[in-house]
Amino acid sequence: MTSSPASDLPVTLADIKAAAERLRGKAIRTPLLNVPALDDELGFRLFIKAEPLQRTGSFKFRGAYNTMALLDPEARARGVVAFSSGNHAQGVAAAAQLLGIRSTIVMPKDAPSIKIENTRSYGAEVVLYDRDREDREAIARRIAEDRGATTVKPFDDVRIIAGQGTTGLEIAEQAADAGVTVDAVIANCSGGGLVTGCAVALAALSPTTEVYSSEPAEYDDMARSLSAGTRQTNAPASRSFCDALLAPMPGEITFSIARRLLAGGFSADDAAVARAMALAFERFKLVIEPGGAVSLACALQQRDRFRGRTVVVVASGGNVDRVTFAKALAA
Amino acid sequence: MTSSPASDLPVTLADIKAAAERLRGKAIRTPLLNVPALDDELGFRLFIKAEPLQRTGSFKFRGAYNTMALLDPEARARGVVAFSSGNHAQGVAAAAQLLGIRSTIVMPKDAPSIKIENTRSYGAEVVLYDRDREDREAIARRIAEDRGATTVKPFDDVRIIAGQGTTGLEIAEQAADAGVTVDAVIANCSGGGLVTGCAVALAALSPTTEVYSSEPAEYDDMARSLSAGTRQTNAPASRSFCDALLAPMPGEITFSIARRLLAGGFSADDAAVARAMALAFERFKLVIEPGGAVSLACALQQRDRFRGRTVVVVASGGNVDRVTFAKALAA
Repeated sequence: MTSSPASDLPVTLADIKAAAERLRGKAIRTPLLNVPALDDELGFRLFIKAEPLQRTGSFKFRGAYNTMALLDPEARARGVVAFSSGNHAQGVAAAAQLLGIRSTIVMPKDAPSIKIENTRSYGAEVVLYDRDREDREAIARRIAEDRGATTVKPFDDVRIIAGQGTTGLEIAEQAADAGVTVDAVIANCSGGGLVTGCAVALAALSPTTEVYSSEPAEYDDMARSLSAGTRQTNAPASRSFCDALLAPMPGEITFSIARRLLAGGFSADDAAVARAMALAFERFKLVIEPGGAVSLACALQQRDRFRGRTVVVVASGGNVDRVTFAKALAA
Repeated sequence: MTSSPASDLPVTLADIKAAAERLRGKAIRTPLLNVPALDDELGFRLFIKAEPLQRTGSFKFRGAYNTMALLDPEARARGVVAFSSGNHAQGVAAAAQLLGIRSTIVMPKDAPSIKIENTRSYGAEVVLYDRDREDREAIARRIAEDRGATTVKPFDDVRIIAGQGTTGLEIAEQAADAGVTVDAVIANCSGGGLVTGCAVALAALSPTTEVYSSEPAEYDDMARSLSAGTRQTNAPASRSFCDALLAPMPGEITFSIARRLLAGGFSADDAAVARAMALAFERFKLVIEPGGAVSLACALQQRDRFRGRTVVVVASGGNVDRVTFAKALAA
């Protein structure tokens, strides 16, 4: 008897199923959207896993809640701390509120005020820092040490990966319910928690499904790391309006999974992402933020590769302000 | 034994359940969306039944498909005809395509080109007419007579009402699954097919739920008809950007149901509707067209009435062009 190819990975299907149990009734089982008339035009079947409809407007709530639900009562009493300028901040704050845990989020002073307000609205204490003069990790570490608080990492943690992997578990279950065989899943990638969590779930439940990462063109560290076989970083001067996907390199744990399970990595530039946002608006009636629309942009670019096949893209979030969204529609 | 209070209505729960069977696997069971943090701000629990995510981008597919699925083989072979400038056109065309029925849609020459193109994309023959010089009903009647085609009415038909009523059936089932007791449902009203179909389903399955119609301020014929006890018309010079809700008066069948089952009618002006569209964008990540957002606008206006209660608004469609949507966000 040979062991399952993924049985020695740091995150297993059992971890993801346990996370799904913890998230039951807390996270939203987001729909898998499909527009049959669009499929005819594209030449392949396209489904969107709609995480903008998730609690806090992005998938980040899944991993944050799973991680904090696993803390023991003493750790819960000491609170949690996280640093993030966006979706992870809101995910941690909302999960902490639900679990009755005190949360402190370290955010840059110049973060969009809507994101700061949203994070506060979930009851978090927000500590602002100056990007140019202060080190957010040092601030978070000091808070963690002073209070004995637990740091909730954005991606490189097995509890986070298992939580994000419930997205992939749902894709497998929803596709099976609909009688659909999924040939490929594309998930947006910053540090890699979402795409690797999904890959673990799909490797176990739908082994013929290829899983790809998608990244902004100048932040394609995962794609290059997969090609090189070792973790690569992004150029310091890189630019993208996909503000949710700007991690400097893949995580250690996430990359150890990615190199085993991913079929490859795609990337798309800002113009392609804006077109994807407009398509989601027009045909799916779904609001996707720039970083959430990269997978969709990549799927549209890969029409030839996917001809006649069935592709699920994970739209990872919808936290975009009105002006940015209107600009994407006008592009 | 007394009979159920609604047992003598022209549409019954059994009709709606039969429609739901016909629609199984064809219509999308659209999600009931909720944003807990928003509930805290509003002071009442707010759910959106997300029909923009329905096939063709509005609830209209439900009634159109149910009606055509009930045609006998001879009638199907002769085809169907409908007149509409918008969502009904797309619903009829898409349903006809699925059922292998030839469809002809009479549309005004100056309808938005996107709506004409969408209707054609479902395989319909589009006959354009001049609003100022031609009578669309006469054109449709001539086509129906020439070809023996069946006219698919937009609202005043028991098969249409039963199909739209599956929206209400799903609301009752989804609320029960979530352990939620719904105090009020608000549904957008043009001719009244959607709101009365929902009212029949809810009267049977959730009798304590109040059902309200919602209309544009200058097109509040249902609200005034309910007050007067007889059908009232809108002033000819009325204006609203809710292009989906401009019927001149309630239908005969729909009003006979509305006067028995509705708790009342609300209305909202264009500015309130635009604010509701922006809120749906920001908090629900959902694209709602003007006519689809009137219920949400009315719920927001009725905060005092609904304090502490649970309200479901039906967002009936999302077929809005980019420029109109961007304007609503900027308002």
